[in-house]
Amino acid sequence: MAPPTPRLVVSVDLKKKPWEQALPLHNRWHPEIPPVAHVMVSEVFRVEMVDWTGSVIKDDDSAADVKFIDLSTVHYLSGPIRVVDKETPAMPGDLLAVEICNLGPLPGDEWGYTATFDRENGGGFLTDHFPCATKAIWYFEGIYAYSPHIPGVRFPGLTHPGIIGTAPSMELLNIWNEREREVEENGHNSLKLCEVLHSRPLANLPSTKGCHLGKIKKGTAEWEKIAKEAARTIPGRENGGNCDIKNLSRGSKIYLPVFVEGANLSTGDMHFSQGDGEVSFCGAIEMSGFLELKCEIIRGGMKEYLTPMGPTPLHVNPIFEIGPVEPRFSEWLVFEGISVDESGRQHFLDASVAYKRAVLNAIDYLSKFGYSKEQVYLLLSCCPCEGRISGIVDAPNAVATLAIPTAIFDQDIRPKAGKVPIGPRLVRKPDVLRCSYDGNLPTTKNPAASM
Amino acid sequence: MAPPTPRLVVSVDLKKKPWEQALPLHNRWHPEIPPVAHVMVSEVFRVEMVDWTGSVIKDDDSAADVKFIDLSTVHYLSGPIRVVDKETPAMPGDLLAVEICNLGPLPGDEWGYTATFDRENGGGFLTDHFPCATKAIWYFEGIYAYSPHIPGVRFPGLTHPGIIGTAPSMELLNIWNEREREVEENGHNSLKLCEVLHSRPLANLPSTKGCHLGKIKKGTAEWEKIAKEAARTIPGRENGGNCDIKNLSRGSKIYLPVFVEGANLSTGDMHFSQGDGEVSFCGAIEMSGFLELKCEIIRGGMKEYLTPMGPTPLHVNPIFEIGPVEPRFSEWLVFEGISVDESGRQHFLDASVAYKRAVLNAIDYLSKFGYSKEQVYLLLSCCPCEGRISGIVDAPNAVATLAIPTAIFDQDIRPKAGKVPIGPRLVRKPDVLRCSYDGNLPTTKNPAASM
Amino acid sequence: MAPPTPRLVVSVDLKKKPWEQALPLHNRWHPEIPPVAHVMVSEVFRVEMVDWTGSVIKDDDSAADVKFIDLSTVHYLSGPIRVVDKETPAMPGDLLAVEICNLGPLPGDEWGYTATFDRENGGGFLTDHFPCATKAIWYFEGIYAYSPHIPGVRFPGLTHPGIIGTAPSMELLNIWNEREREVEENGHNSLKLCEVLHSRPLANLPSTKGCHLGKIKKGTAEWEKIAKEAARTIPGRENGGNCDIKNLSRGSKIYLPVFVEGANLSTGDMHFSQGDGEVSFCGAIEMSGFLELKCEIIRGGMKEYLTPMGPTPLHVNPIFEIGPVEPRFSEWLVFEGISVDESGRQHFLDASVAYKRAVLNAIDYLSKFGYSKEQVYLLLSCCPCEGRISGIVDAPNAVATLAIPTAIFDQDIRPKAGKVPIGPRLVRKPDVLRCSYDGNLPTTKNPAASM
Amino acid sequence: MAPPTPRLVVSVDLKKKPWEQALPLHNRWHPEIPPVAHVMVSEVFRVEMVDWTGSVIKDDDSAADVKFIDLSTVHYLSGPIRVVDKETPAMPGDLLAVEICNLGPLPGDEWGYTATFDRENGGGFLTDHFPCATKAIWYFEGIYAYSPHIPGVRFPGLTHPGIIGTAPSMELLNIWNEREREVEENGHNSLKLCEVLHSRPLANLPSTKGCHLGKIKKGTAEWEKIAKEAARTIPGRENGGNCDIKNLSRGSKIYLPVFVEGANLSTGDMHFSQGDGEVSFCGAIEMSGFLELKCEIIRGGMKEYLTPMGPTPLHVNPIFEIGPVEPRFSEWLVFEGISVDESGRQHFLDASVAYKRAVLNAIDYLSKFGYSKEQVYLLLSCCPCEGRISGIVDAPNAVATLAIPTAIFDQDIRPKAGKVPIGPRLVRKPDVLRCSYDGNLPTTKNPAASM
Repeated sequence: MAPPTPRLVVSVDLKKKPWEQALPLHNRWHPEIPPVAHVMVSEVFRVEMVDWTGSVIKDDDSAADVKFIDLSTVHYLSGPIRVVDKETPAMPGDLLAVEICNLGPLPGDEWGYTATFDRENGGGFLTDHFPCATKAIWYFEGIYAYSPHIPGVRFPGLTHPGIIGTAPSMELLNIWNEREREVEENGHNSLKLCEVLHSRPLANLPSTKGCHLGKIKKGTAEWEKIAKEAARTIPGRENGGNCDIKNLSRGSKIYLPVFVEGANLSTGDMHFSQGDGEVSFCGAIEMSGFLELKCEIIRGGMKEYLTPMGPTPLHVNPIFEIGPVEPRFSEWLVFEGISVDESGRQHFLDASVAYKRAVLNAIDYLSKFGYSKEQVYLLLSCCPCEGRISGIVDAPNAVATLAIPTAIFDQDIRPKAGKVPIGPRLVRKPDVLRCSYDGNLPTTKNPAASM
Repeated sequence: MAPPTPRLVVSVDLKKKPWEQALPLHNRWHPEIPPVAHVMVSEVFRVEMVDWTGSVIKDDDSAADVKFIDLSTVHYLSGPIRVVDKETPAMPGDLLAVEICNLGPLPGDEWGYTATFDRENGGGFLTDHFPCATKAIWYFEGIYAYSPHIPGVRFPGLTHPGIIGTAPSMELLNIWNEREREVEENGHNSLKLCEVLHSRPLANLPSTKGCHLGKIKKGTAEWEKIAKEAARTIPGRENGGNCDIKNLSRGSKIYLPVFVEGANLSTGDMHFSQGDGEVSFCGAIEMSGFLELKCEIIRGGMKEYLTPMGPTPLHVNPIFEIGPVEPRFSEWLVFEGISVDESGRQHFLDASVAYKRAVLNAIDYLSKFGYSKEQVYLLLSCCPCEGRISGIVDAPNAVATLAIPTAIFDQDIRPKAGKVPIGPRLVRKPDVLRCSYDGNLPTTKNPAASM
Repeated sequence: MAPPTPRLVVSVDLKKKPWEQALPLHNRWHPEIPPVAHVMVSEVFRVEMVDWTGSVIKDDDSAADVKFIDLSTVHYLSGPIRVVDKETPAMPGDLLAVEICNLGPLPGDEWGYTATFDRENGGGFLTDHFPCATKAIWYFEGIYAYSPHIPGVRFPGLTHPGIIGTAPSMELLNIWNEREREVEENGHNSLKLCEVLHSRPLANLPSTKGCHLGKIKKGTAEWEKIAKEAARTIPGRENGGNCDIKNLSRGSKIYLPVFVEGANLSTGDMHFSQGDGEVSFCGAIEMSGFLELKCEIIRGGMKEYLTPMGPTPLHVNPIFEIGPVEPRFSEWLVFEGISVDESGRQHFLDASVAYKRAVLNAIDYLSKFGYSKEQVYLLLSCCPCEGRISGIVDAPNAVATLAIPTAIFDQDIRPKAGKVPIGPRLVRKPDVLRCSYDGNLPTTKNPAASM
Repeated sequence: MAPPTPRLVVSVDLKKKPWEQALPLHNRWHPEIPPVAHVMVSEVFRVEMVDWTGSVIKDDDSAADVKFIDLSTVHYLSGPIRVVDKETPAMPGDLLAVEICNLGPLPGDEWGYTATFDRENGGGFLTDHFPCATKAIWYFEGIYAYSPHIPGVRFPGLTHPGIIGTAPSMELLNIWNEREREVEENGHNSLKLCEVLHSRPLANLPSTKGCHLGKIKKGTAEWEKIAKEAARTIPGRENGGNCDIKNLSRGSKIYLPVFVEGANLSTGDMHFSQGDGEVSFCGAIEMSGFLELKCEIIRGGMKEYLTPMGPTPLHVNPIFEIGPVEPRFSEWLVFEGISVDESGRQHFLDASVAYKRAVLNAIDYLSKFGYSKEQVYLLLSCCPCEGRISGIVDAPNAVATLAIPTAIFDQDIRPKAGKVPIGPRLVRKPDVLRCSYDGNLPTTKNPAASM
């Protein structure tokens, strides 16, 4: 009868470099990166992926690999995969419905890491507060993750791909490059949020440095041309890409717009678990992994279901359907932030500033229970916490919240009458792996905090 | 044995004006608004509240009341309530733990409304797209709400108080007034977000117009002094206030900082249901209602549990614990937005812009299923949808999502192969109540949208 | 516009006896008990109910009321209510769809009780182990219940009506009386389960003693005739009745067969909370309360949707739809029983015996954490625990399980390395209220138990 | 750093027979079956298992394999596994805490089957209604299963091991054999339930036929002795075994009593999904699979945590902790049964009879929506439906319920005004695979059913 075993269409060998794989990986978006595999609609197929850095970050006892990482090479993606229905490939204007039937770590590689980059090399949401490179290793016990560097917590993963997307058309690619160049070149002067969110660079423009284009050989004229045009994979965009939607786990479905013939689906950046916002940037539990996928094509679906949100019909966004299998938590402790920054300055309905304050509030609170602030920062970046926009209309304050499931801790973290429990039992050792910060950018402090 | 019936400490009579109530209501925050009731820790007590406008919005067939509302008078709050443990009141520096034992509409007044204000008088998150005043009435059938103006949907309410807070100290009040004056006076020049979020005014400064101060008689010198200083209730702030946390329902607990002797707890702005963000501004299902509360005092809890996030020890935020009784939804359809605005311009990690795009995407999508866009705008403001900050680090794009439970619709709203069902069956009639927009501010359109 | 407030169609005055109410209550099923109220389809109406004993059990410090209760008078029901669509009443053969829009305790009477009857007067599932009358009082704090007699637990109620049903036709009533008479007269000889389940009597046949028939005056000829025929309300039957489905809370819907013109709907036996099985018999948190209901009529629905399961078309059962608002629990501890009884004797696929063993296992386990066994017996009868038939085919053992949400306890009740925590902190005082057992039936012990 | 990959301690080769495996399987419980592997506490290890029949049931288009199966050979188990903490093995009186870290189908074998046995060879809960052997094949798409034989349903699996248990001591084994022999020899006369539950035999006593004892060679004297004593694996018992607890999925924990040195843990009978009760007997989605487990030893835990429920300290049952990752369903349709059998006869508080009626009610109901009754019988046996004991005290009727998640169907199965939809669209084709019933036992019919 029918052979239900998922067909392995992209495999990876973790002993090899990303560019040495039998089906070489790519780390840019471009319509001319050729497909490495073909799949039919309705068939279940399996894709393997390296972690986003291509094994640069190691399971060792130093964060130096994080500090000195070359970020021009992220994210390594598997694909592109061409999707065909009988004889006819997916065509521009179609919607590609991709169901995530199953996913997980690669067998034999059941570990991951969460990290913050050095402020001079990548940064993160709170890089002005935490400028050092840090790293925590996580080990997996089936559905659970625990870390030798963040003791006292263990949680089931809501595992998902950080990146899933279709190839852009040349027209869409040009739109991306133009608008992002504008923000990189002029944003520092024109964008007030840059004063508060200190992460740099403002955008990640195409660069031949670190560029990998799959089957296109480095050094050829074709490679040179494409490498100069191809979009970086850092931000999520109209093609999906780095959406980091943490609930996109087993049983979910993604409706992706198709911009090129065959759709050219690529995936990567597997996360064992992530918190909403992925605040530390290298922020999920990053790992290698596999996806088992099934595609359908909704012919003409872009026009039928997606409304452009910008000057061209390409200014669309994917739609997602969340699967029925998520860890079940009963109790949540919720931290709030309003759009007033650490200096006390008022911002106007700014959800990013409000969320920053909510995260800072949560970090300070949890550090009272025996954790270093760096431990909590990494934890909130990768545990299944929820970041919400609660109120976006009550001028001048946006209200954002961060909800943390209390069950992930081995102690009761709720406020109680009497003092917070203190003493040796609660001093959590060891700490995250940590490098020095050797730059000279100023660190932001909570002016009135005692610690 | 013990009398468990909640003691009614504040009652309201809906046939009277807010200022005619036996225990007169107030609509400002100020340390000198005198308590109208006293409660003991551990006792369960009941507070009744008018709707946030004090019955200005009617269950009738016109949105004119919305268009011409005097917003200087909102929100009408019940309280302040002084909290005492034996002989000793709550003291500055304490945390007031308030448990929501029960809540609901006021018996005999089981209806509510959702509305958008005119762009010249209040506006809302999408006021540049939808400048007209609109209104939808909702009727309650126990836990469920349905609207004659938005047919085809029915959902259980996640009922909660939009506002719960303690009185500020004079020092904290001064901080508020100063920072909000700064943004109102200079924000238009300095804040780039104003170009994208068109709601006005930038802040809501103290005004004697429309001011009600509870037991303090209008026209007295005391009233004049306080009315000039007292903060408006629109934004959420350090004292809690208008947090609009939609999950703050039965069984939840709020840990509020105490700034004045007795805590002086006030509540109001009851919501039968609200979506994250409350995007239409008058955006929940607004109603009158009651709360049954129980207070505990955590002595010295502010220093013990809250870390200041700003220049003074008063720059704190409350903590919330979410209760175990929420409607259970299985399937969610998720819309995404990135921080690129309607004109195609790139913004830097701006979660507010990303959320605006996610909401616009959802509105356009759902309007394909037989709804007017105004119907969807109101619906997404008040149904139990979740607004998330999914990614806040992948420069330059913040990714925000809006997740909608599919079960609230009487049709299957997921994308499917084949066309969206069309035809008379799906043209939802009637529409929301609607006024003309008589101003001359420009309306934002999705430039490439076909509709 | 439309008046949404539920119309109060049956009110009760707790200061009066059940038979003194303005609309007198009834405690029997019979087609000729006349309706006390009429409702229209689609209207939301409110019904108030006394507790099942009609206020015989008191909020006092003795279980004597339980021990000496006259069980011939239970359960007091509100109704019957005649259901009409325009001019046409519900007719035999229709299905009556009843939606539970809202429910709760009666305002001013926010307390309840759980009890076990004396083995000589009512008994219960484990009456041979626990022959004494016991009682625990519960107080309500909004959604939560706590008991001064069972310290250390608090849980949200999954509130529901124990009894909701339509009036039987005379033909159906005769079927009931005949089959139950048979079991009462001959069951002791023919039914082996009686050796293991010691509750008595085997059935509850019609009795004029304690009989109340609503508007039909006691002492009249009509009363005499009906009282001799009318079925007791103890067991659930084809008309619904005492189903004790603990999840039948807000938002649920019951599809009841209609046997007489008008349907003649009756309700009662409100439970603030109940565990599956309601093992102690007086076993939920019993209370007075109200229901807000909405009816629809599915014409001819019995034939369309219900299949008879027995010799006549009347041998049917209602269908239930469970609502979306239940307390959310994350972790469950599960106790198992197999169909081997306390003497070690093997039974054949007997789920009742297996469930008895599961409950006994749970009682003994939890009593190690500082509780008396009577406290746990009452607790498992009324807390939101789940009783499951896990395996019913693996001869000779049925496997039944009892799952208990761990969050209802203020201590961690899971097995851990090291001893169970002991000592004064964990000795829970006081105990349940308790009478002596003055009968001389033998008590069953776990032969090998140390306690 | 630490190698987290689970160590594979028992592998199976599906191309070989169970007794040809490198670590030969066993299908009996006996203290002297020697361990095939050793594990340390805290290490995560992997066990592979064949399906319960050892590949006798095929993915083909006939149910003949089901009809003529030799049931003397089931269930094939992997193990025993000896559990050691440093130097010291688990000892009698300890509790073995086994955590299920992960589980799933064997890669390359992603399919399963559900079946009913012929009434003369195995039977099932409803074998008197459905005497034929039937079979449905299920294919897996990651977390989802669908069947070519039961169209229109698809559901996520709540995957679990049907069997997990420790080896019995000789003393416990003797207790089992004695009590089960008693029921087999005398039960037909003494047990009234046999008249209603027609499955046969009453018990499954030791038999050398079909016996496999792992490393013990067939034909040796040792084999002969053990084979005559060793217990069959059909029923769940004090050592756990065939508990069929359908929620025992990822993240669950089982606390097993230890009766022999090393605990000698065995597992098998993997279920992709099962309904409570597993009513068709071959009733889950049966498959081969793997478990990733982690053990801890609670020294002396039997005495500390388990209370004997019978004449010896060995009369105990395991305790289970349910994991946090279950499919999330919002809406359930619930069918009820009372302890009145198909002939209309009254039984006394008999949960097995009540559950039979609930299942029959559900089958007849769902068959109105285009299914054959055999399709529904198999479906209710393997889909994630919940079987509850709702009321066990209201003499003479036990009330049992069967709750079915409505989302597994591709049509709305709730009762609605108007007729059940009929017509070709809803006639589900094809049907389950089916053999003739060639025996002459009478078939039970619902006497008044129209179909």
